[in-house]
Amino acid sequence: MDFDTIRARLDKLLAEGRKGELRGALTMLNEVDIAEYLETLDNEKVLMVFRLLPKDISADVFAYMDNDQRQRIIEAMDDGEAMRLVDDMFVDDAVDFLEELPAGVVKRMLKNCDENKRQLINQFLRYPENSAGSIMTIEYMELHRGTTVGEAMAEIRRTGLDKETIYTLYVLDERRKLLGTVPLRKLLLAKDDTQVESLMNQQFVCVHTTDDQEAVADTVRKYDLISIPVVDNEERMIGIITIDDIVDVIEEENTEDFERMAAMFPSEDTYLKTSVLTLVKNRMPWLLILMISGIFTGIIIQHYEDILRTTLSGGVLTACIPILMDTGGNCGSQASTLTIRGLALGEITPHDLGKVLFKELRVGMLVGALLALCGFGIAVFAFGGTIGAATTIAIALFFAVVMAQVLGCVLPVLAKSIKLDPALMASPLITTIVDVGSLIILFMVAINVLHV
Amino acid sequence: MDFDTIRARLDKLLAEGRKGELRGALTMLNEVDIAEYLETLDNEKVLMVFRLLPKDISADVFAYMDNDQRQRIIEAMDDGEAMRLVDDMFVDDAVDFLEELPAGVVKRMLKNCDENKRQLINQFLRYPENSAGSIMTIEYMELHRGTTVGEAMAEIRRTGLDKETIYTLYVLDERRKLLGTVPLRKLLLAKDDTQVESLMNQQFVCVHTTDDQEAVADTVRKYDLISIPVVDNEERMIGIITIDDIVDVIEEENTEDFERMAAMFPSEDTYLKTSVLTLVKNRMPWLLILMISGIFTGIIIQHYEDILRTTLSGGVLTACIPILMDTGGNCGSQASTLTIRGLALGEITPHDLGKVLFKELRVGMLVGALLALCGFGIAVFAFGGTIGAATTIAIALFFAVVMAQVLGCVLPVLAKSIKLDPALMASPLITTIVDVGSLIILFMVAINVLHV
Repeated sequence: MDFDTIRARLDKLLAEGRKGELRGALTMLNEVDIAEYLETLDNEKVLMVFRLLPKDISADVFAYMDNDQRQRIIEAMDDGEAMRLVDDMFVDDAVDFLEELPAGVVKRMLKNCDENKRQLINQFLRYPENSAGSIMTIEYMELHRGTTVGEAMAEIRRTGLDKETIYTLYVLDERRKLLGTVPLRKLLLAKDDTQVESLMNQQFVCVHTTDDQEAVADTVRKYDLISIPVVDNEERMIGIITIDDIVDVIEEENTEDFERMAAMFPSEDTYLKTSVLTLVKNRMPWLLILMISGIFTGIIIQHYEDILRTTLSGGVLTACIPILMDTGGNCGSQASTLTIRGLALGEITPHDLGKVLFKELRVGMLVGALLALCGFGIAVFAFGGTIGAATTIAIALFFAVVMAQVLGCVLPVLAKSIKLDPALMASPLITTIVDVGSLIILFMVAINVLHV
Repeated sequence: MDFDTIRARLDKLLAEGRKGELRGALTMLNEVDIAEYLETLDNEKVLMVFRLLPKDISADVFAYMDNDQRQRIIEAMDDGEAMRLVDDMFVDDAVDFLEELPAGVVKRMLKNCDENKRQLINQFLRYPENSAGSIMTIEYMELHRGTTVGEAMAEIRRTGLDKETIYTLYVLDERRKLLGTVPLRKLLLAKDDTQVESLMNQQFVCVHTTDDQEAVADTVRKYDLISIPVVDNEERMIGIITIDDIVDVIEEENTEDFERMAAMFPSEDTYLKTSVLTLVKNRMPWLLILMISGIFTGIIIQHYEDILRTTLSGGVLTACIPILMDTGGNCGSQASTLTIRGLALGEITPHDLGKVLFKELRVGMLVGALLALCGFGIAVFAFGGTIGAATTIAIALFFAVVMAQVLGCVLPVLAKSIKLDPALMASPLITTIVDVGSLIILFMVAINVLHV
């Protein structure tokens, strides 16, 4: 049954006010689908339907709803009801939500919760944005040194329902230092009187609260983990990050790379929710910088104007400027994309600069030669250029392509090695540099080949 | 301890031939790190160190090694040893590996394994590339209708070690139709004589063997799953796909989008492992197509050459052509990137075309007006242009920007609605179209404003 059919049926029950049946129908759906359905409703209906949800799933549905709707629901609730809802959420989801609320509302909500929870939430709200601390959760299963398998299983049965994952257990010492991890699988296969320490994996991988979420995602991806422990500066266990949140981080970081590579500042929200003004603000700075850098190309063209006007070139050089510039830009874009992506996935490191450069140099010479040939043909047959003019264009094309490939691979690697985001060294910036370079080459070659 | 230190210690043990100690040191490492270490060794040493590994982890290490090394190891082994290794791998890893081997080697290996396994592997090798079937594994925990919790736990203890995940259990009927899923967590909290069917989640999400891996990844991401069941056309359970493989699919699909958006054919291998010739082959087709399309811009320039030469424009128009074209290209790149990304993440659907278009139109007019103003200034102050020439450029810039934004959002959405990959409608293609459009606008405006 597809979403439209489900929606039509629920809408019908809602319109006819058959609340009992609607409640029944909702319990047949996945929390994600319920949240999706709620997004289609207007404000007053959302709250009404939300209150129909069974208590045990309402916090989950709430976590999947969009922020505007969540805020409206919270505002319509009294303080007690709102706090109970936040209480039912996992700490990472609750903090995500509270971060987006106006400070006044957060204060009002925190006033109503107990001292421990308040301290905890405040601590979470203090972790730097995009740090491991800001995306972790504290609902993990911890075991103490000396626990037996039987005791551990009893503990899981007692408290496991409230944990975000019970599939990896964490063994801590008296000072809460993480000693090792035990997969639940091993626990199930062991005898009841076995000490959990003997099952423990001591070669566990962990991250620190202040680590960047991108580095965390890289680690989880590399080691195929489903959760990763987070420790503080004294190696004390603080929380865990689960794979579902890592998947979101991966997509977020990819989106940021896509945006940076298209010369934009990354946006906080999804496209449809970002205002026109914010979109303009994210796009203008680089557009302006690149446009102003374009002055150099203009100055070069003005300086060598005579060459363009000479009858020797017959207007062919001017006609070929767009082809020269676009081809250079496209080649730079190809080389930089592969390099930036390779760096992001860890397939290329700054140590590989030599290898990458040698490869792009060979690719550049091959591609450059082929495109130069093609450019020669275009100059002669499409634009009726002389052999001299066509040769000029072919040579300029060749060098523009090689230059674009080299810059395309060198600049991102250099950026990485000085801790800048390689994605900044992408097509738009490289195109602008290559434009200047290829025009200079074009005119130098013209002077020497056409003798103007 | 960082990787370089680990490597130095292992290298020392290896050089001094202290095999026992080396073996001991290796068992202290994660499988992923061992594979990374093996990649630093030359051929003969790899095989020697590989054979030192304890049997229970060698298949895991093998799964993390790179293909060339795996092939060399297999070739150095006799048939029996090779087949035992493949036997120890999960079916999805084994198939991944066999797919990369030369047909002759696969045949030789399959000859040595038993009938069941051979049939199974052959079936897997037949699933279309990038389908759910090609990435799934069959090592999941299945339960039958009527099983009690106690029986299920006993079954997990008996066979759980060989399963890729035991954290979700699948309840099947007599015809192997999937009835529901049971998280291990629920099983642990339930009484031994409870029927598993009563704990079962019937609102499970599943995919079909022929579904594209990208769609599978979208589903897993949307529902925050750690594994997803795969069924055939008759809804019979065939296998599962686990989140670690989904994470790889997500990165692979992102890489493909990055490559397509930079006008390249996606490559099969990582950058450093792709040959120069393959890189050239992946890059040339679009470069040629875009270059040949550039003929149109050239023809337009040749046709209106008189306007560029007139003293009224004083060479300013020619000097501004690169700025006009790059700015148009950059704006098209920004709009298309956000649209393509929004479509890929499901944040934008073809139904939203109206909303997206209206938004880009407003962004385009604002950005266009600001850039036109800036362009006017550049024409006057940097290039010494007349008010007339500067006005011409400003107007052309405004329309080029608006056109680029509109095409940048409309083309990817249209591509999606006719089932083409939206990533094809990215910056290089849009730049080429916008080039033609903005030049035509430039000359039309020049004729009307400058009266040439």
